[in-house]
Amino acid sequence: MSDHSNQPDSNQPEQPAEQASNESQAPVARTGSMGNLDTHSERYAERTAGMTASEIRALFAVASRPEVVSLAGGMPNLAALPLDSLSEEVARLVSEQGQTALQYGSAHGVPELREQICEVMALEGISAHPDDVMVTVGSQMALDLVTRIFCDPGDVVLAEGPSYVGAMGAFATYQADVVHVAMDEHGLRPDALRQAIDEVHRQGKKIKLLYTIPNFHNPAGVTLAPERRPEILEICSRNGILVLEDNPYGLLGFEGQTYPSLQAQDPENVVYLGSFSKIFASGMRVGWVLAPHAVREKLVLAAESATLCPPTLNQMIVSRYLSTHDWLGQIKAFREQYRERRDAMLGALEQYMPEGCEWTHPEGGFFVWFTAPEGVDAKAMLPRAVTQRVAYASGTGFYRDQLGSRQMRLSFCYPTPERIREGVRRLANTLNEEMELLRTFGSTGQRDISGPQAPSPDTA
Amino acid sequence: MSDHSNQPDSNQPEQPAEQASNESQAPVARTGSMGNLDTHSERYAERTAGMTASEIRALFAVASRPEVVSLAGGMPNLAALPLDSLSEEVARLVSEQGQTALQYGSAHGVPELREQICEVMALEGISAHPDDVMVTVGSQMALDLVTRIFCDPGDVVLAEGPSYVGAMGAFATYQADVVHVAMDEHGLRPDALRQAIDEVHRQGKKIKLLYTIPNFHNPAGVTLAPERRPEILEICSRNGILVLEDNPYGLLGFEGQTYPSLQAQDPENVVYLGSFSKIFASGMRVGWVLAPHAVREKLVLAAESATLCPPTLNQMIVSRYLSTHDWLGQIKAFREQYRERRDAMLGALEQYMPEGCEWTHPEGGFFVWFTAPEGVDAKAMLPRAVTQRVAYASGTGFYRDQLGSRQMRLSFCYPTPERIREGVRRLANTLNEEMELLRTFGSTGQRDISGPQAPSPDTA
Repeated sequence: MSDHSNQPDSNQPEQPAEQASNESQAPVARTGSMGNLDTHSERYAERTAGMTASEIRALFAVASRPEVVSLAGGMPNLAALPLDSLSEEVARLVSEQGQTALQYGSAHGVPELREQICEVMALEGISAHPDDVMVTVGSQMALDLVTRIFCDPGDVVLAEGPSYVGAMGAFATYQADVVHVAMDEHGLRPDALRQAIDEVHRQGKKIKLLYTIPNFHNPAGVTLAPERRPEILEICSRNGILVLEDNPYGLLGFEGQTYPSLQAQDPENVVYLGSFSKIFASGMRVGWVLAPHAVREKLVLAAESATLCPPTLNQMIVSRYLSTHDWLGQIKAFREQYRERRDAMLGALEQYMPEGCEWTHPEGGFFVWFTAPEGVDAKAMLPRAVTQRVAYASGTGFYRDQLGSRQMRLSFCYPTPERIREGVRRLANTLNEEMELLRTFGSTGQRDISGPQAPSPDTA
Repeated sequence: MSDHSNQPDSNQPEQPAEQASNESQAPVARTGSMGNLDTHSERYAERTAGMTASEIRALFAVASRPEVVSLAGGMPNLAALPLDSLSEEVARLVSEQGQTALQYGSAHGVPELREQICEVMALEGISAHPDDVMVTVGSQMALDLVTRIFCDPGDVVLAEGPSYVGAMGAFATYQADVVHVAMDEHGLRPDALRQAIDEVHRQGKKIKLLYTIPNFHNPAGVTLAPERRPEILEICSRNGILVLEDNPYGLLGFEGQTYPSLQAQDPENVVYLGSFSKIFASGMRVGWVLAPHAVREKLVLAAESATLCPPTLNQMIVSRYLSTHDWLGQIKAFREQYRERRDAMLGALEQYMPEGCEWTHPEGGFFVWFTAPEGVDAKAMLPRAVTQRVAYASGTGFYRDQLGSRQMRLSFCYPTPERIREGVRRLANTLNEEMELLRTFGSTGQRDISGPQAPSPDTA
C-alpha cells in the first residue's frame, strides 16, 4: 500500500489536543452510564473486537510536541512542492470545470487520470489498460476493498514480518489471520515462504493472499532482490495464492533505480496498489489499484458501497498536476531530499549508537529498521525516549505475533537532517541509559504499561 | 445517508464510454480463460456474492445520452454555486496552507470543520460536541462504517420500504438482512415497525439497526410526521435497536421548514449521518457521522483501517467555504431551484399522466415516488422508456424483497424545469402505450431480460 502512516510528528497545533481528547477518559462520562462506559458494548459486530487503538497513541500528546524529534511517523515531506503554481492550476480547475469537479463521478475513477496512472506505472515496467485501474481514497482504501472481496473470517494472509501496520489493520477488520514470512537483507525469503505455506496448509487453513511491499519496505527498509521475484511468483501461483503487491515507494529509489514489478511478471495473479501520497501529496488521498479485469469489476462494486466514488475534485487536481507540472522532476527532488535524510540518519547511527545495535541500509523509501541489543524492550523504553525528546515506532506493532520487541522503525522522511541527527543522538543516549539499567537490574521492561497489540495506521 | 446517487444523467462525455466498457463483455476476454471468465471466482469471500451490478447499468450507455431526459439519478444541481469566489478561496488555501492541506490528517477529521458541522446540525435542533463528530468520505462511508462495527452476518437491519439503494448495498456487504417497514404519506408507520420487530423476534433473529431517512425520503419523497418521532424512538429504545438517522436533505425543505431531528430527542440511541453533498458540493465527498462517544471511538478506529483519513484538502475547502461564503443563502438558493423543479414535475404529472397513476408530493428533497397502474412492470418497461428518450429508476431496486414492480423514482433535482416537463410527457406516452399493450395482451413484463436484484448507488 502506500499511505504508510500519518500525523506522526505533525506540527499542526490542533494535533496534541486532538489526540489528548481521544485518550482522555473524560468525554466518555457523557455516555451517562456508570457501570459500563459503553452502553452499546453488547451490540457490536464480532469484527469490532479486533479494532484496537494504537499502543502508543497515549503518548501522542507528548510525542507531537515540537521539542520532541519524532522518528515515529511516515508523513512525507511536502516542503518541495510548488504551492504557487499548484494553487493557480487548482483555481483554474474550479472556475473552469467546477461543475464537473464538484459533482459525483464514477466509483471506477476519472478516465483521464486512469490513463495517466498507466503512464506512471509504466516507469516500473507495468503495461496496463486504464480499464483495469480503479482510483481509491488513498491505497489504504484499496487494501480495505481487496481484503473485503477476498477474505472470509479465518482465511490466512501471508505477509512479511515485520509488515505495514495499516495493512494488518485491514486484514484484522475482515478477521483474516496474518502469518508472517521472514525477510533478510534481500527481502522476503522464498524458503520461508514455502515453509509458511506448508505449515498453514498442515493446519487446514486457506491462504488467500500474499501481501508484500517489494520495494523499500515499510518498516524494514529492504528491497526484494530481483532474482527472487520470479521464484516468489511461481510459489504463489502454484499454491493458488493471489499476490497483493503494495508499491508506494517504488519511484523513491535514491539512485533513481527501479525494480521489476511483480505485476508485470504475472499480471493475472497480482493485484497492484499504487499511490500519489509519496510522489505528490498525501492529503489528496488519491491511490489506485490495478487488478485482473474480473477482480477490478468486483472492486468497483465494493467501492460503490464503501464511498460511492472517490472525490472528483482530487482526481482532477492530480490529473492536472501531472499534465501541467514536471512531476518526474518533482519526484527527483523528493528523492534527493530523502537521500540526504537517509544519509543523515545512517551517519548518526554509525556515530552515536552503542555496540550491539543493528540496522538496515535502505536504498530508497522512508524507513530504517533498527534492532537494539539483546534484553532491550523497545516498547517499554518508548516513554523514557519521549522524556528524552525523541520518539520512534516500536517493533511489536509491525507483527501480529509478539515479535519485534527489540526493534524499532526509525523514519527519516519528515524531520530535517539536523533534527534527524539530534534525534538519533538522543535515542542513543536513551539506549545507553537503558543498557546501564539492564546491566544493573537485568531487565528494562515494564510490560504492564503496554496497551493493546495493534497500532493504528496513524502511529506507524 | 446523503449521497443518494451519482452520475445519473451526467453530460460528461466520458460517462457513456465508461459505462459501456463496464458492461461490454469484451474486456473480460483479457482474463484469458475460456471456460470460466473469472479465473479468481473460487477465491472470493462469501460477502462478495452479494455484490451485484445495477439492474439498469446496462442501459446507462443509452440513458446518459444528452437526448434522453434522465429522471433516474440523484445528482444535485450545482449550477448556482459561486465558482469564481470559491476558486479564489481554494487558491488561497493551497498557497497559504498547502503544507497542511496536502498532508495526512487524523481519521477523526479536521477539528475546525467538526465545530462548524455542529453549527450546521444546530439548524435542526441538534446540540452536539465536536468530539462526537467524525468526518467521512461522503456519508456513504459513514453508512459503511456503522454497518461494519455493528452488523454480523445474519443480523437484521430494519429499513423503510422502499429505502435508499446505497444503504442497502452497505448492509448487503456485511451480510446483514434488510427487513422493510411500511410507510404512508406521513413516513414510517409505528404500527408496522412494532409488527416487523415482533416478526423478526419470532424468527429468533437479532435486530441491530433501524435505518431511516426521516426528512424528504429517498426514494419515497415523504417526511416522517413530527408526532410519530417520539413513538418510533421509544419503540426502538425499548427493543434495544439503535436508530441510524440519515439526513442529507433536512435543510432542503421548500418552505425553509425543518423537522425535529431524532438524534436531538434520543442522543444516546441515535447515530446521525449528515452530508455536504446536497447543501454544498457532492464531488467534495465530505459527510459526517455524529455518534454517542464510545461508538464514535470505534468508528474512528474503523475509519483508520478504511482510508487512514479523509482528504485534508477537501475538509479545509468546506471549512473555508463555510467561513467565507453565505452558505445559508446558498442553501436557500438551492432550495428555491429544487422547489421550482418539484413544481414543474408535479404540474407535468398532473397534466400528462393517465388515470390510475399515483405519486407522492414531496415538500423538500429530490424525489417523487410514482406508482403506475395495476399490471405495469416498471422494470420491464424501462428499455422502452429509454427508447422514448426518458429514464427513471425502477422501484424494485429500492426493495430487498421484490416489491415495487409498479413503482419508479422520479428525480427532479438535476434536469431543468423544461426538461422535467418534457421527460414526464415522454414517460406518460410510454405508459399510455404500455397500458394499450396491457389491454391487448394482458401483460407487459419481459421478466427474463431483467438483471440482478440490487442496483448499485450510481443508478439510484
